[in-house]
Amino acid sequence: MNIIEKYNKRAKNINSLLCVGLDSDFEKLPDRFRQMENPQFEFNKWIIEETHEYAAAFKPNSAFYEARGDAGIKELKMTLDYLKENHPDIVTILDAKRGDIGNTNNGYVKFIFDWLGLDAVTLYSYLGQEATQPFLDRSDRACIILCKTSNPGSGEFQNVMVDGKPYWQLVAEKVAEKWNGNKNCMFVVGATYPEEMKKIRSLVGDMTFLVPGVGAQGGSVEKVIMSGKNSKGLGLIINSSRGIIFSENPKIEALKLREEINTYR
Amino acid sequence: MNIIEKYNKRAKNINSLLCVGLDSDFEKLPDRFRQMENPQFEFNKWIIEETHEYAAAFKPNSAFYEARGDAGIKELKMTLDYLKENHPDIVTILDAKRGDIGNTNNGYVKFIFDWLGLDAVTLYSYLGQEATQPFLDRSDRACIILCKTSNPGSGEFQNVMVDGKPYWQLVAEKVAEKWNGNKNCMFVVGATYPEEMKKIRSLVGDMTFLVPGVGAQGGSVEKVIMSGKNSKGLGLIINSSRGIIFSENPKIEALKLREEINTYR
Repeated sequence: MNIIEKYNKRAKNINSLLCVGLDSDFEKLPDRFRQMENPQFEFNKWIIEETHEYAAAFKPNSAFYEARGDAGIKELKMTLDYLKENHPDIVTILDAKRGDIGNTNNGYVKFIFDWLGLDAVTLYSYLGQEATQPFLDRSDRACIILCKTSNPGSGEFQNVMVDGKPYWQLVAEKVAEKWNGNKNCMFVVGATYPEEMKKIRSLVGDMTFLVPGVGAQGGSVEKVIMSGKNSKGLGLIINSSRGIIFSENPKIEALKLREEINTYR
Repeated sequence: MNIIEKYNKRAKNINSLLCVGLDSDFEKLPDRFRQMENPQFEFNKWIIEETHEYAAAFKPNSAFYEARGDAGIKELKMTLDYLKENHPDIVTILDAKRGDIGNTNNGYVKFIFDWLGLDAVTLYSYLGQEATQPFLDRSDRACIILCKTSNPGSGEFQNVMVDGKPYWQLVAEKVAEKWNGNKNCMFVVGATYPEEMKKIRSLVGDMTFLVPGVGAQGGSVEKVIMSGKNSKGLGLIINSSRGIIFSENPKIEALKLREEINTYR
């Protein structure tokens, strides 16, 4: 099944556009997990069981697993295997921000789509479509292209003007018009830039946005929904990581964020 | 020691600007290695011993190790440990093409600079200096920013014009002027674009370029030297991967490429 359809189906079934970010930084894990044999995996399993009812997607960020070397990579794999076995209808996204030349991208495709078995990955556009083709060719998986990122300094390179348009707009247009032949492309658009999100929505039809930046980074849920929802009331994968997983009660926080999102849909 | 000084010292000592790319794709390894317990590590050890006399740097590309999951990551670590113990004066570069928001980049810094112990890493600029700071802050390590990549389709996004300048020029200027406070930045500039390399050299003084694209990708060594060497006859880390490591005789190919480079210096 097309991954965007898989997401839409899950989102409708549980009435949720929430993505739970598994940014399971070892240093921040509660003590009871840090002492276990597979601390990141055990923590993720707990978070998944607490929040899955409200999660349309789970998004581990590769950096927090790589930080522990091969041990972390093994626990990332255990997490994905667990999700596949127990919650196969929830979309899995690796926030890996990858992208290399074509020949080399085959290695990342193997790692992310085949060995780890994820549904989707975040990617840079800088090397162009020709280089990105090994990812784009995987019509059974999804490619989420960095468009306008949520961090405060994202304007330095993303807002420069090209023929009267900001660079992020160029990325949105080229990907929507040329890269999306397999209908498996999405965009990363930060919650912290609702005006830009509105403009991107006006350019790319009903394409789906992965939206980081609510919660710890300060983006407004109301503005995200108003600026970003598509004609079907979908088109958004709204991620919260630290705000849920390191809270007192992840289940309550996930429920609260789902409800807040639904208030404005 | 500053990593660029480390490189210059090694380059002078052995009279070589050669970097050997450890793109040790498991599928392409000779049969005798594929049957070993740690095939990528054993292959790398052999390549290192064959070529180290002529190598100023070694550059594994992370994708080829990630393709094998945690086993590959473990062998990447074994390779770096081996280099550190046996050839500590050779610069090590991870071609990882990373870059995330600041908080998350700490995870990659831990993985690449601390756990693996590399001297340098390739990075995207798209998220801006603010996000990249955890890498830039490491004055004991080097950051190699993707500027003009070697692949045929790199122009799609890299050549768009911003205020009358190509985007890759903007990257070169901003990084040289603003990001390089610790004098630990370099650029990736493809051998396949010598005119662009000439222009970048004219803009960034004696900064060092990592140059992929000679050998299998078709870039001319003569043009690279003529376009890219700095005022000290240095400033270039010229990489060859497949052209050396999967050749009949890696030692001879490494020697030949060093000699070809030195013909034009």
